[in-house]
Parts: sequence; C-alpha cells; structure tokens
Amino acid sequence: MRKHGKQIKIYDNKSKMVPSLEEAIRKSGLKSGMTISFHHHFREGDYTTNLVLKHIAALGIRDLTIIPSSLSKVHEPLIELIKAGVIKEIHTSGMRGKLAEFISEGHMEKPIIIRSHGGRARAIEAGEVKIDVAFLAVPRCDEMGNASGNGEHTTCGSLGYAMVDAEYADTVILVTDDLCEYPNMPASIKQQQVDYIVKIDEIGDPEGIASGATRYTKNPKELKIAEYASRVITALPEYKEGFSFQTGSGGASLAVTRYLREAMIKDGIKAGFALGGITQPMVDLLEEGYVKHLFDVQSFDLVAAASIAKNANHHEISASEYANPSNLGCVASKLDFVILSALEVDKAFNVNVMTGSDGVIMGASGGHCDTAQSAKNTIIVAPLYRGRLATVIEKVTTIITPGNTVDVLVTERGIAINPQRTDLIELLSKTNLPIVSIEALVKQAEQIVGKAAPISFEEQVVAIIEYRDGSVLDRIYKRG
Amino acid sequence: MRKHGKQIKIYDNKSKMVPSLEEAIRKSGLKSGMTISFHHHFREGDYTTNLVLKHIAALGIRDLTIIPSSLSKVHEPLIELIKAGVIKEIHTSGMRGKLAEFISEGHMEKPIIIRSHGGRARAIEAGEVKIDVAFLAVPRCDEMGNASGNGEHTTCGSLGYAMVDAEYADTVILVTDDLCEYPNMPASIKQQQVDYIVKIDEIGDPEGIASGATRYTKNPKELKIAEYASRVITALPEYKEGFSFQTGSGGASLAVTRYLREAMIKDGIKAGFALGGITQPMVDLLEEGYVKHLFDVQSFDLVAAASIAKNANHHEISASEYANPSNLGCVASKLDFVILSALEVDKAFNVNVMTGSDGVIMGASGGHCDTAQSAKNTIIVAPLYRGRLATVIEKVTTIITPGNTVDVLVTERGIAINPQRTDLIELLSKTNLPIVSIEALVKQAEQIVGKAAPISFEEQVVAIIEYRDGSVLDRIYKRG
Repeated sequence: MRKHGKQIKIYDNKSKMVPSLEEAIRKSGLKSGMTISFHHHFREGDYTTNLVLKHIAALGIRDLTIIPSSLSKVHEPLIELIKAGVIKEIHTSGMRGKLAEFISEGHMEKPIIIRSHGGRARAIEAGEVKIDVAFLAVPRCDEMGNASGNGEHTTCGSLGYAMVDAEYADTVILVTDDLCEYPNMPASIKQQQVDYIVKIDEIGDPEGIASGATRYTKNPKELKIAEYASRVITALPEYKEGFSFQTGSGGASLAVTRYLREAMIKDGIKAGFALGGITQPMVDLLEEGYVKHLFDVQSFDLVAAASIAKNANHHEISASEYANPSNLGCVASKLDFVILSALEVDKAFNVNVMTGSDGVIMGASGGHCDTAQSAKNTIIVAPLYRGRLATVIEKVTTIITPGNTVDVLVTERGIAINPQRTDLIELLSKTNLPIVSIEALVKQAEQIVGKAAPISFEEQVVAIIEYRDGSVLDRIYKRG
Repeated sequence: MRKHGKQIKIYDNKSKMVPSLEEAIRKSGLKSGMTISFHHHFREGDYTTNLVLKHIAALGIRDLTIIPSSLSKVHEPLIELIKAGVIKEIHTSGMRGKLAEFISEGHMEKPIIIRSHGGRARAIEAGEVKIDVAFLAVPRCDEMGNASGNGEHTTCGSLGYAMVDAEYADTVILVTDDLCEYPNMPASIKQQQVDYIVKIDEIGDPEGIASGATRYTKNPKELKIAEYASRVITALPEYKEGFSFQTGSGGASLAVTRYLREAMIKDGIKAGFALGGITQPMVDLLEEGYVKHLFDVQSFDLVAAASIAKNANHHEISASEYANPSNLGCVASKLDFVILSALEVDKAFNVNVMTGSDGVIMGASGGHCDTAQSAKNTIIVAPLYRGRLATVIEKVTTIITPGNTVDVLVTERGIAINPQRTDLIELLSKTNLPIVSIEALVKQAEQIVGKAAPISFEEQVVAIIEYRDGSVLDRIYKRG
C-alpha cells in the first residue's frame, strides 16, 4: 500500500492572495458533496471553522463531508448547517456541548466517524479520506503561504494537525490575520503546499486554547492521584536518565508533570523528551534543563505556544510524526510513560473518554489510544467516582482505548495493574503504593455511589469509533 | 496527476540498527534490476556511493539503475561496475573525470539521463523514477533515523537532495559515522522515513565539499566579469530593499556575491534572501545583516555547512522546495536575480554547462535551467574565451539552459542582452556598462581565438538531457 499523493499543481507566478473567503471558496472549485477540513489548534477560541462554513453555506454548496481534527463547544453553529443540508458527514476526534448532544440525539443521517489524532493522520495518508479543500487558520503567513503558529494578533503555537492537511489536501486555503514579509521562516506549512491566502480581521481567540481539557487542578483528590501516578513512574525501571513521557489533558494527568518534576530534581534524573499536547509545566522543565526536548503536536496553553517560537529544543511535529501507527516510527512509539485521563475505565481496563455516563458524546479520542498502544507503560489516572457516578465500572459505555493497551489504573483509592503486566505487579507490590485489583476498585466504587442504572439506547448508530489502525472499535447509539 | 506515494510500512518496534552494509542491503530486499539512489552533498569527498556499490556488487546484484543527485571525479570506480553489469542505467545531474569520459566514449548500452536538481525532484515526486532503495550518507543520526548534516566526524551542512529521496524511496538506509543520542533534533531526514541505519568508520571527507565547482577566484578576468555583473544587478529596478539573489558555482559567479556586498553596503540596501548552493560570502552577508535569510539546498563549503547548524535564519530546504517546477512555488520562483556560469553560450543565449568543447561530458546541470527559468533576471557570467577556445559561439555543443530563459550575458569584453528583454536594453544602455550584441561577442571571440573545428560525433546517444519539466531538451552523442 502506498501513501496518497496530493494533486500536483504548477505555480503560475500569480498572487495567491484572495480578497475574500467567498472568492477563495470559489477559486478552490469547492462543490457540493466534497470533503473539507479544518484544524482545532484554537480549541474553544476557533473563529475560522464557523466563518468559513457560513460562507460556504451562503454559496449554496451542500452535502459536505467535514473532517476537522476536532470540534469544540464553539462549533454549536454547525447544528444549523447540518439541518440545512450543508454538512452531511462529520469525521472528527471529538466534540462537546450542544453539537455533541445534537449528534447523540440522532439528528444526522450518517453516523459521525471518530478518529484518534494518529488514526486521522493515518487515514489521510492512506487516502481513506481525501481532502478536497483544507481551510487552515494560521496566526502568521507570508504572501506565498509559509505559515506559522505565532502571529501579531493570535497565537496557537504548534500547527501539528494542520501540517497533515497541508501535505495531503488537494487545495489548501490559508486564513490569517497577520500577513508578514516574505519569507516567514521557519514555516510549519510551506509555500509549496498552499494555493490561496485570505486575510481576515481575526482568526481566533488565543485565550481559547487553554480552555476545556487543560485546566490546572487544585482538587485534592486529583492531586493525590497525580502523586500516586508519579510514584508509579519513579518505581519503574524506565524511570532513568533520558526517559520519556507524555501527560494527556485532564487535571490529574497534567498535575503528574508537577510531581514528576519534584521527583526528578530529588533523584537528579533528566528526561530525554516529553511529548504531546505541551503545557506550561513541561516548558518549565525544558527551560530548567530537566527535559532535553519537547515534541509538540498541539500547544495546550499560551506559555507553550510562545515557547515553541523561542526554545530551540521545543520541536513542532505533525500528527503523523506524533502518533500515526502506519509509518516507520511515530514519536509516541518511543514513549516510556504516558499518563492519560478517563471518563470511565472498566474491568478489562478499557477506557472511555468519549461519552458521558448518560451516553451523550462529550469528549474526544485525541491521542489516547495512540499513546496507550505505543508507550511502554500506559497509566490511566481517574477518580474512583465523580459526584454520584462511578468511574471504574463493569463495562465502559464506549471503548476508545482497548484494555490490552493499558497497564496501570491510578485512582485516589487504589492502584490496579493489568494482570498481563506481571512485571509491574511484582515491582509495584514491593512499594508502599496501594495496589489493588481492578475488581476491588469496581466494587469499592459501587459501594460508595451505587450502581448506575443502565442507559437505554436505540438502534440508530450516531457515531463509529475507529481505532488508530482503521478498524471499527465501537459504536455510539442514539440515546433512548 | 498526483504525487507518487511512498510505500506505507509499519514500525515493528525492532532496532533499525544493522551491523553491516551487506546486511542492510540484504534486509532492504534489493534485487537485480531495481533502482537505487545516493546524494552528492559530499561532492569529491563522498566515500559512501562507491562503498555501497562495492557491497552490492559483491552480493551478485546486477542491472541496477542508479539515480544519484550527482556524480563527481571520485566516482571513477563506477566504470568497473558498469563493465561488470552491476550498473545498467544512470540518472544524474552530471559527472566529471574518468567516468564522464567513459560514458562519452559510448560504453553504456543505455544513454544516461541528465536532470536538473529541480527536474530530479519533480521526476521523483511524479513517480517517473521510482527509488526502490535510497542509501543516504548522513553526518549524524540517532537510532531511529533522525538525521542531520553536521556530525562529530564529518559535515556536509544541508541535506537538501537527500531529503527528497528520504521522502519518496520505498526503503531508506542511512549510513553514518556519528550515531548520537535520541532524539537528534532538528532533523533533516526524519525517523518516520527511515528503515535501517548502518554505522561505518567514515562516510566522507568534508574537505571534499569545497572542491570542484566552488573555487574562490583571484583571476582578474573573472573579477572583472563579476564586477560587471554586480553593476548590472544594481542598475535594475529589482535591486532594492528586500531583493533576492542566487550565485551559482564557478569562480566569477561566486565572486559576484563579494561585489554585491560592497554595493549593498554603499547603497544601504539589504537583501531579503539568498538561495542556492550556499558559500562563505553569503554566510558573511547573513551574519553582517545584509541578507535576512539564506535558503540552502547544498552547502558549498565548510563555513556554510557550519552556519546552517548555528544561524537561525540559515534555512535548509529540499531540492523540491528549491527548484521543483511542479509545485505551488519553489523558492527559486521568488528570485529577483540569478548569476550563473557557462562553459558555452551561443547566439540564441542557449547555455552549455555539461560538455567541453571537445564534446566530452565534464559538468553538471545542477540548478542552472531551474533558476534561469524561475528568476526575474538571469545573468550568465563567462569569459569570452578560455585558453584557445571561444566561450561565446554560434551554437552550443549541448543545451542545458534554453536561451529564452537567459536575460544577460556578461563577459570581460562586453555585456549582451537578450533581445526579448527590451526593458533591460533600455535600462542598461543608459549606464556606462559596455553593452554589445551577442553577435558582436561571437565575432570578437572568433577574431581572438579563431573558430574551433567542428566536433565529430557518432550516431550513438550517450546522454539524454531532460529539461526541468521532463521534456527532452538535447542529446549528447558518442565522440567520433
């Protein structure tokens, strides 16, 4: 099997600048039934997706398949476009808020397709999804299309997801609010990949990038979990000079970095690299010399976004370089440790980060299953229960990450180790960490909050969960 | 038409390190009749091509097509491999010395194919030539294959040609003499592209990279030509703040940079970027602030090779980014001026940089026709005659760059302007530069050194000259 080849075009020496989004859409040759893409580096601060789709709708173009790298609450206006027939299919990593509820209620004819970040890069590279036109918001670019994530008005840092679209989409339209002098170097997206450029007033709100999944917790329960997780890491043989790690989004997961820092200082150990969505605590580690390299597919806050432009060892990587399972070694494949959050974990260590306990879509696949499968040690951090709902349960509502790729579950009430990791059981049993069985955790959660009533679903599939290799891992059904 | 897609492979988590070249060749699945590639960043200092081919021959593999980015005198051992049937076809930018003579004498069954640097990138991207195995010498890499041009033992700076091979070859084998700690960042070739890595004692002699085409002239004739060329540039409207230029290899061409520097200092004008094979004078301009950016597809000396690793505005680019005519704008397409050498120039402004006046191959296509077609102003610098041979003649022996892409010919005895550039004729006639007709130059040369006897050729084609767009531009015939 071969990589999908982008259409070969020849530069005509004409200006790539187009005065309006409307004209750019026209020039792109976008027609009803085509596939378009966006990136989600601005997270809740994204203005561009809604704006572009509004213009597309106004031109009477319909039946589109949209494949944004992810969707957030801010994309609520898509509901009207689905109703109006402008959007026919959605492929995304996740979605939240009203749009997610709308989809969960079964209002789309075709189920949406959920892909991990690595799985999306794989599918695009393999030509399983072909992007006709990519609309990519970039904080800075020059008149030829050399683009980067730090601009005069807006900043998103890494453009890792957008880099894949720029490489494979047949037509690439950049949308920017900072047109700079040629050449804009170093460039995340390169002039050889770009067809048209539109300058608008504001592409996004940089404050939005730190919203949602990337809060800094002060919750004592989460801090306890983070401390446990950090102690699990430091007890394992891979924790040594030059080790590597990733901490996913979510309060406890992010807090692990801070505990790990203390351990590294105490032990005089430095990490070789940290990977993933990059946050301020990781940048601090880099600048203090406790991490030698940061690989950044997505900057999770403004400190990280600024760091990528100034720290020589803070490296931008594409989603394919990050986590694509179908290449000769994504960076995730070199991970010693990944620490990931969960909405639900079940007895088989399967993890759900997609649907709430009410069966409604409320999250994103992200790099969860990618890094879980890739890393030597996958540690899930989650409270045993949230409010009156158990997190550790018999069977997860939706499988995003298969249990055979999960090694340890850390809760505030005990740490469960996947039975297949007999080495970890032996090692961690020697510590004073509270090692328990996963069944004991399920029971404990039940005892505290009781067993939730089963959710009633209807027959209609509203979402298909693709595993990173393209196989169907699970389905989400319409709420009953 | 779509880009050729590299074979998709999945990393098996095994080590990519292979103990010997022989085993790497075996693992690559290389078979008789396949196509392999090399790069020429070490120029006359390249050890790897000969070494790899020796091992391939020892394994009994035959009938190979080799597509190095170029060949030099150091590749004389290929003669024996051609005779032995190991090498059946050669695609290259050029060749020199004994090998070039051997080819010119018609000893290969199939004519070699000569491509420009941009044309090679185009042909590979378009899948016109498919590389089964690329053997790429890299001065430094890590165990996963992240590779760069500056190592402990050897240095070649930019890996611009090799980057194309790494992106499109089905199997990529790196050959290095400096295996460093993971991750080797920033990387010119990335781990996702690399199958196997072999560590050997020495991949090349860095001193070799400054040899051959990149001498620094003290010849008064060449200095006069360079001064004239610099005065042509400064008389044109594109010479203003932010202008861009490239100076090709060859004494006079390289010397232009030095004269241009003086003019820029005097005029208080700074260049936006310089492109091409990068040399010390260009690095000086960057460090002094007279050029804002350097785009480097090939480092022509050790100062340039060192600069790329330390100067943030010295950017490595691939041959495709440099000069590929089939993408959305190679950097060459943004050139205001290119200054190029010539072995011969004729009345139609056609340029030969490939064959000597005796009809024997002795040069390389390089980026000559790429930049000539791309730049706004193409200036050829050449002495009117060399020894007893005229340079400016009725008809060039071999066309590498078509005359309709050449604007000005600068000799020490006068400057000829292509009649199609009436704007330049008007502008330059106002200066005190010695503007003459090309016919007058031909006549003058004839008067000084006489008319050379016509070369006698036989019917056998020994080389096909492909233009950058893939069309056949000319043929070289066997010497009679």
